[in-house]
Amino acid sequence: MAFTELKQRVFDTNLELVRRGLVIYTWGNVSAIDRNAGVVIIKPRGIEYDDMDAEDMSVVDMNGEMVEGKLLPSVDLDIHMALYERFPEVGGVAHTHSTYATGWAQACRSIPIFGTTHADHFYGEIPCTPILPDEQLEGDSYERNTGNALADLFADGTEAMQVPGALMACHGPFTWGDSPESAVEHSVILEEIARMASITLQANPHTPAIRQSLLDKHYLRKYGPNAYFYQSKE
Amino acid sequence: MAFTELKQRVFDTNLELVRRGLVIYTWGNVSAIDRNAGVVIIKPRGIEYDDMDAEDMSVVDMNGEMVEGKLLPSVDLDIHMALYERFPEVGGVAHTHSTYATGWAQACRSIPIFGTTHADHFYGEIPCTPILPDEQLEGDSYERNTGNALADLFADGTEAMQVPGALMACHGPFTWGDSPESAVEHSVILEEIARMASITLQANPHTPAIRQSLLDKHYLRKYGPNAYFYQSKE
Amino acid sequence: MAFTELKQRVFDTNLELVRRGLVIYTWGNVSAIDRNAGVVIIKPRGIEYDDMDAEDMSVVDMNGEMVEGKLLPSVDLDIHMALYERFPEVGGVAHTHSTYATGWAQACRSIPIFGTTHADHFYGEIPCTPILPDEQLEGDSYERNTGNALADLFADGTEAMQVPGALMACHGPFTWGDSPESAVEHSVILEEIARMASITLQANPHTPAIRQSLLDKHYLRKYGPNAYFYQSKE
Amino acid sequence: MAFTELKQRVFDTNLELVRRGLVIYTWGNVSAIDRNAGVVIIKPRGIEYDDMDAEDMSVVDMNGEMVEGKLLPSVDLDIHMALYERFPEVGGVAHTHSTYATGWAQACRSIPIFGTTHADHFYGEIPCTPILPDEQLEGDSYERNTGNALADLFADGTEAMQVPGALMACHGPFTWGDSPESAVEHSVILEEIARMASITLQANPHTPAIRQSLLDKHYLRKYGPNAYFYQSKE
Repeated sequence: MAFTELKQRVFDTNLELVRRGLVIYTWGNVSAIDRNAGVVIIKPRGIEYDDMDAEDMSVVDMNGEMVEGKLLPSVDLDIHMALYERFPEVGGVAHTHSTYATGWAQACRSIPIFGTTHADHFYGEIPCTPILPDEQLEGDSYERNTGNALADLFADGTEAMQVPGALMACHGPFTWGDSPESAVEHSVILEEIARMASITLQANPHTPAIRQSLLDKHYLRKYGPNAYFYQSKE
Repeated sequence: MAFTELKQRVFDTNLELVRRGLVIYTWGNVSAIDRNAGVVIIKPRGIEYDDMDAEDMSVVDMNGEMVEGKLLPSVDLDIHMALYERFPEVGGVAHTHSTYATGWAQACRSIPIFGTTHADHFYGEIPCTPILPDEQLEGDSYERNTGNALADLFADGTEAMQVPGALMACHGPFTWGDSPESAVEHSVILEEIARMASITLQANPHTPAIRQSLLDKHYLRKYGPNAYFYQSKE
Repeated sequence: MAFTELKQRVFDTNLELVRRGLVIYTWGNVSAIDRNAGVVIIKPRGIEYDDMDAEDMSVVDMNGEMVEGKLLPSVDLDIHMALYERFPEVGGVAHTHSTYATGWAQACRSIPIFGTTHADHFYGEIPCTPILPDEQLEGDSYERNTGNALADLFADGTEAMQVPGALMACHGPFTWGDSPESAVEHSVILEEIARMASITLQANPHTPAIRQSLLDKHYLRKYGPNAYFYQSKE
Repeated sequence: MAFTELKQRVFDTNLELVRRGLVIYTWGNVSAIDRNAGVVIIKPRGIEYDDMDAEDMSVVDMNGEMVEGKLLPSVDLDIHMALYERFPEVGGVAHTHSTYATGWAQACRSIPIFGTTHADHFYGEIPCTPILPDEQLEGDSYERNTGNALADLFADGTEAMQVPGALMACHGPFTWGDSPESAVEHSVILEEIARMASITLQANPHTPAIRQSLLDKHYLRKYGPNAYFYQSKE
């Protein structure tokens, strides 16, 4: 039995989504990639969190074929696969239907950068995809097309590791990071940013985005070459 | 003592409403039907959740007459009875005053399909009844008329099992399913969909409903003849 | 040591406000009256809930003079006293700064009857007082004037026991009942009704109040002469 | 090892922010000052709450140089330092990204005094700073400039101990008090006041601030020379 440790981490991070209040029933999934081994590990489809353990995680190869495990992978596997293929630095992906982020995705609106909480974690607005045309909904490629629509948001040169999440229009949030733990943390943060943005707009419907200078200051003091937010960078 | 198992399930699902935060005090009720035995089992009226156990569930025949139990059935019994009569596939019914779903019912608005969370579980908007005319409020038939108003929303051919819930105008949500467990799950989901819809409208007051093609894709990948959302369909 | 039982109930109901999430720090108080003994028992002023026990409840006579206990009564005592004097059937009074009810009080708006949740418990809108004129804020009579402003809302003949709560403009909710337990239950319900009303107005800013016929039906099936909501009326 | 007691209190109050739901991950910090010893004790930077104990608190002198401890102080240290320098009565400072207070800060709006909950704790509106000009974001002085912008809000003569908190535009709330415990309590109260203000504006977008007379009455019955809100003033 291989991949024991990574299966445990994928299991744990899936449960973390529940503990953080981002997921009810089966409304979410987390995956991790082992690029050396050429496998992705993901929550099995349609299984409730109480009814699974770490050994139940599905292991698939880069074509999505099952390598290990008896349970079919999440129906959203191809979304995760597209993100892994398009973003070579990504080590983990998370998907939820968390309430506020989903509300913004349903409104088909990118989340503007209204403050430093946002700027501390996402180096730009959290973009929302266009609505998929009908022909992209058909057959087996719907999930793949969803993943590509998310990845296409970064075709303008925005670094996916600097804006580690996006909204699928009419659907909900997807986040990523260098690990499944990081992907889940970004889901938690994205939900909180979405909630703050709703409150901000209620208090002032004409709130402008913050200026680039403030975004730079906050993002770069954490992640730039001269970062000083953490104890050290080694 | 008959119906021990079903009484236990009705008791458990009533408590699940409390655990999920949908009900305070006596503000909800769940029932189940045993169509072979010709009985409906429901929470007794006006009793708080802490003060009852499984044996206290009321058992009535299809005319609403008590078959077993010392406590009168929920005052909403006739609403449940109307739904069981009009929807022959329904095995359980749940009623709550959950906050957001009740807010929409009080606003007398159907909940539009704003996204895939909704489309995954309700194959169309969640309809709201008209306001009952005065003459339907009088005497013993108020609760029966309420049930009929809910059922009449499906007179257009919408399958009740595909849209397993509706809003009673000025009142609150009713949901159903093939079992009491399923009915309660639909109450939880309806509340979350209502909350997401409020957030969506705040972020974009002109949000359109999703297109039929996306509704079809999401609902049918779970429940259609070629569904692939779950592990298997056997 | 007298009044042991009633002091325990006043203590317990004060803590119930905290458990229900209606109060933080010292932001609330519950009292009870023993009309035969001519005493009111109330939370002591400025004491946090963790730092007191049942014996610390203040006992005062109908002039507000301390009869028993070492701690001064709540600074809001005179509001409670005015309500006890003006409403002879009241046995307990509760005051909180619960979030939504306080929001409505700050907006100086009565809460319209938007649905049956409201109609099940309050036989009419939840009224909000006028803003007190400056001269009523001065000296020792401010709290007494506050109580009178609340009671004056019922000078039109509305029965205080049928609308067991009101909003003090710019301040927050006060509720009452035939016991301190009932007063606290009405605080919980008023907060939930206020929250539902906010959601309702967001979904439809032009929502009308329900008709008198629906209010009558729901309130009277619980509390009218032919009530049938509870197991029995004995 | 010195400052054991104060380090414990700074540690405990940092955790209190988490318990009260005001902080996730590393999104907050509390400090205390010992003016006799000339030191400030603060949460270390970039450390999660679960990964630290009381001994990990950073101790710095009034120039911000480390006196004790192996971990660098919070990146927000200079904000705290500016507040300690400008407000000689302050004994503790707290900073969070609590949801509603941050929403108002992002909207760049001071929180008007809409009611007595506010007046009981803040003797005036909760002010929001102007947006910092670009040149104040550069280099090492950004955090110092942030602290000065907060302190400058009180240059009109408002007593910082009477309005123990303010909003940094595009960022979030800062609060203070005569101790770290008091600073944290003010963070909790500011968040609740911000939430009530949002609900108030939704119920009545044209809600005026309360009059000075009501503000005086409520603030001064707690903190004025003739205060009577607490058991005693000794």
